[in-house]
Amino acid sequence: MKKGVNFSDRLGKAVKQKNNPSVLGLDPKLEYIPESIRKKYAKDCDNHFQAAANSILEFNRRLIDATCDIIPAIKPQLAYYEMYGAEGLRALEETIAYGRQKGMIVIADGKRNDIGTTAEAYSKAFLGTTEIFGKTCRAFDADALTVNAYLGIDGIKPFLDDCRKEEKGVFILVKTSNPSSGQIQDMRLEDGRTVYEMMADFVREWGEPLTGENGYSSVGAVVGATYPEQLKELRKRMPNSWILVPGYGAQGGTARDVACAFDENGLGAVVNASRSLMCAWKLDRWKDRFTHEEFAEAARAEAIRMRDDILAAL
Amino acid sequence: MKKGVNFSDRLGKAVKQKNNPSVLGLDPKLEYIPESIRKKYAKDCDNHFQAAANSILEFNRRLIDATCDIIPAIKPQLAYYEMYGAEGLRALEETIAYGRQKGMIVIADGKRNDIGTTAEAYSKAFLGTTEIFGKTCRAFDADALTVNAYLGIDGIKPFLDDCRKEEKGVFILVKTSNPSSGQIQDMRLEDGRTVYEMMADFVREWGEPLTGENGYSSVGAVVGATYPEQLKELRKRMPNSWILVPGYGAQGGTARDVACAFDENGLGAVVNASRSLMCAWKLDRWKDRFTHEEFAEAARAEAIRMRDDILAAL
Repeated sequence: MKKGVNFSDRLGKAVKQKNNPSVLGLDPKLEYIPESIRKKYAKDCDNHFQAAANSILEFNRRLIDATCDIIPAIKPQLAYYEMYGAEGLRALEETIAYGRQKGMIVIADGKRNDIGTTAEAYSKAFLGTTEIFGKTCRAFDADALTVNAYLGIDGIKPFLDDCRKEEKGVFILVKTSNPSSGQIQDMRLEDGRTVYEMMADFVREWGEPLTGENGYSSVGAVVGATYPEQLKELRKRMPNSWILVPGYGAQGGTARDVACAFDENGLGAVVNASRSLMCAWKLDRWKDRFTHEEFAEAARAEAIRMRDDILAAL
Repeated sequence: MKKGVNFSDRLGKAVKQKNNPSVLGLDPKLEYIPESIRKKYAKDCDNHFQAAANSILEFNRRLIDATCDIIPAIKPQLAYYEMYGAEGLRALEETIAYGRQKGMIVIADGKRNDIGTTAEAYSKAFLGTTEIFGKTCRAFDADALTVNAYLGIDGIKPFLDDCRKEEKGVFILVKTSNPSSGQIQDMRLEDGRTVYEMMADFVREWGEPLTGENGYSSVGAVVGATYPEQLKELRKRMPNSWILVPGYGAQGGTARDVACAFDENGLGAVVNASRSLMCAWKLDRWKDRFTHEEFAEAARAEAIRMRDDILAAL
């Protein structure tokens, strides 16, 4: 992390340098990992959790190696590490460290939320530092974290403090990509706004003091590619917020859908794909060219295609 | 876990057996831990994270030992383990295992939330099982998990499936205990309900099919003791939902406040206290009787006082 450069400016620079607003989602299910890797660790490890964690780590490293010169950021989804207990979390620690070492921005996708004192602990875990016996340590040390603001500002403030102090970022859930997201988020308030519009207004307000030189804030929003109309509307409603757009690829979002998230200069959004990159070798367009063992090469080919697909739509 | 007994009935039985609806919140900050423990591990461990994790684990074990015959449940707050990275999560695994071994019900307080496939992974991590190379493993193996329903039913369904299949429970955030909880949760919808009332209606609806023999569901709600009026109203609105009530003690909730969460038989709610038990030796009422080193004995004395305080108010 370069001192004096806030998260928004770091993200903007990375996207421009690689001319690519894509994010590699690392949600590694064991069945995504080729047998050669799984077999190697199944044989050597003390226990099943350790074998799974080591398999995941090699899988992630190879995906990072294959894409780090073209993709600016990774987004490990924490649930897929917690499934494997403390060993899984070790794989997460090492994945984050490896990604950063390879020059990628790391967005920890944990959707964390709690009351103030506890939110502070979460922020220490993922963005800030933990004091242990007088030494300043960093636990997971990501560049940004996704958070859920159902608890209001005092559950968000500790993260904002670390955004400022540690030059990190957050992405607050606004309109999520899943089919039932409307059940709560689309409900209309007495004042005429939907719940997600209210959340967008908070993102804008909370983010303003953290605006970088590129005009965007280190406080971004999550809006799913599966709701292009809302994405378009929210782009206008949060003119200074980065939008993290999940839902491209396997969940059905197209380049045309995600294009609504960008400003006229092609900035202001990053687009995540997980399954379509991790399992690119399975896609109709690649399955004749790559085997499961060549998952990383297939991910690279798909990453280039995805980049060009999005850039063409902008 | 006894087969054939759903979470609600297990919780009800545990509360009745110990005649105590209290929950011991395990949110261990290092400064809560006496020097003797910290020094022991600071000396012996490979690294700071491991030393912190081992200190936490001994602190938790001694609290559990001192209270397991009188308190039916523990609630580790996940943020305070994640602060110490993978080592912290190992301390969490071992704390959960130790609590269950001592006959306590374990509520993992993680407020997890995500889209369907990812919620499934979270549920596997905390409530269900993970398949690893053909073997069925359990990662954190708690009895229940707190969850945030901002994403609607498809982010909740995987947890409900494990509630049924694995006889586990969830507590969904309805009205949280923090000062700014109203910022989003108290907003009024066009249909006249507040956001938290809408959430309560979902808790009731989603929980109905999981109702146990005691009339309560394995799908409970989180409502803070700091909002007694809303607690009273929500008790009526969700007549079959266990209410997990944080905010007693250090956050300012009194026995009279939490009494509103119970039904006329004194069932239907559990009350969490974290700091006031972990740091009981510091309280005015105990500080002349216990030293920091006697934190566990102080926690026991305070646990008895808390129990009697709540029972007297019912």
